[in-house]
Amino acid sequence: MEIERKYLIHKLPDHLEAYPHRTLEQAYLCTEPVVRVRRDADDYILTYKSKGLMIREEHNLPLTEEAYCHLREKADGRIITKERYCIPYGDHLTIELDVFAGDLAPLLLAEVEFSSEEEANSFTPPDWFGEDVTFSSKYHNSTLSQKKD
Amino acid sequence: MEIERKYLIHKLPDHLEAYPHRTLEQAYLCTEPVVRVRRDADDYILTYKSKGLMIREEHNLPLTEEAYCHLREKADGRIITKERYCIPYGDHLTIELDVFAGDLAPLLLAEVEFSSEEEANSFTPPDWFGEDVTFSSKYHNSTLSQKKD
Repeated sequence: MEIERKYLIHKLPDHLEAYPHRTLEQAYLCTEPVVRVRRDADDYILTYKSKGLMIREEHNLPLTEEAYCHLREKADGRIITKERYCIPYGDHLTIELDVFAGDLAPLLLAEVEFSSEEEANSFTPPDWFGEDVTFSSKYHNSTLSQKKD
Repeated sequence: MEIERKYLIHKLPDHLEAYPHRTLEQAYLCTEPVVRVRRDADDYILTYKSKGLMIREEHNLPLTEEAYCHLREKADGRIITKERYCIPYGDHLTIELDVFAGDLAPLLLAEVEFSSEEEANSFTPPDWFGEDVTFSSKYHNSTLSQKKD
């Protein structure tokens, strides 16, 4: 089970390059439920996510590079590329800030994952966070993968 | 974790139609690891199986009929259709006998699933079972899905 909140970001935080970051590439084979393949540095992962907004069941399963490339060819819509920055926040939380590349730029989204629904509901975001889009499927990466033009 | 042994069958057991049976349709998006979609009566399932012969890690995740049909279009090779008969054996085992349809006919394969490796290794098959093909990847359904012509 994955419990997370998601926010639009309009202005990057200071000293962004000081935080750990890596390039993610992901492609969607299905959006309901989500069946996605992702390249995360040297890791290749098949992800299944059940329907849902703040709370979703998620399974992450290892792929080889060859299997990833094979499945990526089967993707619908656009392949998403983004730089993910991991920014510590508060006692034990991590903000995952995604800076989208390609034709989704200059979109910026931040996600925070929680260990319980109570913790998610009591979260106070930093002042550089924009609108809470947790309860909108518009900013799901699976939705963003669909080309609208 | 799935622990099973697999056998070739050359002659159908008596009274086959008396056992519960259903039609399975399955299609492969990837073979190493296995990423498969299956229709099993009114259930639609995405299955991931890690590499391996007798012992494999297996995840079964629900799909909608729409998602199944969408993913089936992305399959490689042939779509496998078979009638599966479930035949009780001994105290608590079940023989799953697959009667393949289409261009794989008249292939017959039987699988038995066990709760431990010890139980799998001490299994005595009924006399109508043919060769033990547990340790051959030739009879994996993922291999059978690949058209060789």
